[in-house]
Amino acid sequence: MDDPAGLLTAFRAGEPRALARAISRCESGRGADLIRALYPLTGRALTVGLTGPPGVGKSTLSGALIAHVRAQGKTVGVISVDPSSPFSHGALLGDRIRLLEHFTDPDVFIRSMASRGHLGGLSGATADAVSLMDAFGKDVVLIETVGVGQSEIEIAEVADTTLVALQPGSGDSVQVLKAGVLEIADVFVVNKSDHPMALQLQREIRSMMEMLNYDGWVPALVSTQAVEGKGVDKLWDAIVAHDAWLRETGALHAKRRSAFAHRVRQLALGTLEGRIEDAIAQLGDDLDPYAAAEIVLAEYGVRGGVSALGNVRAHGDVRAHVKGL
Amino acid sequence: MDDPAGLLTAFRAGEPRALARAISRCESGRGADLIRALYPLTGRALTVGLTGPPGVGKSTLSGALIAHVRAQGKTVGVISVDPSSPFSHGALLGDRIRLLEHFTDPDVFIRSMASRGHLGGLSGATADAVSLMDAFGKDVVLIETVGVGQSEIEIAEVADTTLVALQPGSGDSVQVLKAGVLEIADVFVVNKSDHPMALQLQREIRSMMEMLNYDGWVPALVSTQAVEGKGVDKLWDAIVAHDAWLRETGALHAKRRSAFAHRVRQLALGTLEGRIEDAIAQLGDDLDPYAAAEIVLAEYGVRGGVSALGNVRAHGDVRAHVKGL
Repeated sequence: MDDPAGLLTAFRAGEPRALARAISRCESGRGADLIRALYPLTGRALTVGLTGPPGVGKSTLSGALIAHVRAQGKTVGVISVDPSSPFSHGALLGDRIRLLEHFTDPDVFIRSMASRGHLGGLSGATADAVSLMDAFGKDVVLIETVGVGQSEIEIAEVADTTLVALQPGSGDSVQVLKAGVLEIADVFVVNKSDHPMALQLQREIRSMMEMLNYDGWVPALVSTQAVEGKGVDKLWDAIVAHDAWLRETGALHAKRRSAFAHRVRQLALGTLEGRIEDAIAQLGDDLDPYAAAEIVLAEYGVRGGVSALGNVRAHGDVRAHVKGL
Repeated sequence: MDDPAGLLTAFRAGEPRALARAISRCESGRGADLIRALYPLTGRALTVGLTGPPGVGKSTLSGALIAHVRAQGKTVGVISVDPSSPFSHGALLGDRIRLLEHFTDPDVFIRSMASRGHLGGLSGATADAVSLMDAFGKDVVLIETVGVGQSEIEIAEVADTTLVALQPGSGDSVQVLKAGVLEIADVFVVNKSDHPMALQLQREIRSMMEMLNYDGWVPALVSTQAVEGKGVDKLWDAIVAHDAWLRETGALHAKRRSAFAHRVRQLALGTLEGRIEDAIAQLGDDLDPYAAAEIVLAEYGVRGGVSALGNVRAHGDVRAHVKGL
């Protein structure tokens, strides 16, 4: 299993250690050949993203969802995306303990992955890990972010169905939504539904949804009390309903096409970024930034057209079903 | 002033309308020639970034800082970076009212700018606007973000001195710091210092600072009550002390060199990003993402080496004075 061919054989034979090893290879930047070989096996899993502010109970929700899905005989892969900050590890370990009950279940594969740098974006290896779990045959792949920074939004580029969890009375629901999280939700989850402010949060979400001009799927709104498993069946029904809608309308193809484009863009730009660092380091001190960018780009045959707006367009299509973003 | 040459003449003559027009040109992607012409005039302003979670009182702090700086006879440029989400405008207009008292002061130039997409990163036009205000002769340029998403962190790439404002009793201070905000702070500001939890927040910040292995500047910790202007003199002293430290140690040159590299990288990658969109759109449906990225990159003479890790390294140097990030 130490050579790529042996790893691939073990992976295809369904050995969980091979899946773990394959993800590790992707994390260390040596996963290209594996993804290429296994990509034809992908596209079958139901991929679900879960995000929301810290403290909302995402790990408890994950645990309850896993239990619900396992009770139906489905296999599950879980990816927990952690920020790379040195301060978060203790807190996250505490959160992850809630997933512990599933660690001994051979049909639940749980993996923690770091986000990209401390800007918090999802690394390319996250998408690779989703592909690998999908190719391995997991029926459901759940991707959970800690809900800080860019990974919150990018999760919608990796998952077919995105859950945004909010908790009542936290006082920051509207402010969290400022960052664009409202627009990526396929399902809103009001967790801790026994909280006295739960109804108010639901009203708040509904009135904000009315401001958005949804073109197609209108997000479902589900209440849960994840600690007791309450409402988790309704949440799963909403996920399945969204998945059915994606398939029936052809939106799934468009969504995956967009996710594929996002992934190719990240790989291409990431590779270029690594290469242009060296070019930038060698630039003289007397250049303005536009002249410097032109010199760097000339090495790739690009002449002129340097603009501070170049990267606006590419981020504008995160959520095509919401008009006017 | 409608032609570039006339605009440049008016800009150099110190006409505020020319500064406004120049920033608008940068925002619409037509600012390259202006920046090139004016870049030799930059590097003189003291640039200060202000970030922190929503509700911490950043606009009030900004207003108090402006008043303090103006009382010393210095001119000020202010850039308010707003997220592009359709939900934030109302709230932000409310915040901005606190800056209103300075709108009639001809030596205070205030400009709101959108962040890049709803991922919340700073757009290249923000750095352009800082350069323009600097070249225009503003003594102090204050860049304020709403503290949501990536712009929080990126502000340290634009400003020489970064203030991170926190408020007592908000309950989310530690969680906000998860996102990497702690690492970019040159000065911590505990605003609303009359709050009963203010001392506890100070202790919390100090104990977290002890965990970081500062290599050089150790962030200052200042308490303010911005509504009444209390502590703002101390805050300004801390900013000046950091500026002096940057100059005396040569760290300013290294910092600006890093900021320059960040800006060139953003311009180069942004330009490439716009161009590769078309290439991606034309890719067939039967490719895996790595093969697709190789096809896209081959157009730029790049062969092989596509890796999901390519973009990790470039984000790793946001804060060189904190070891081990």
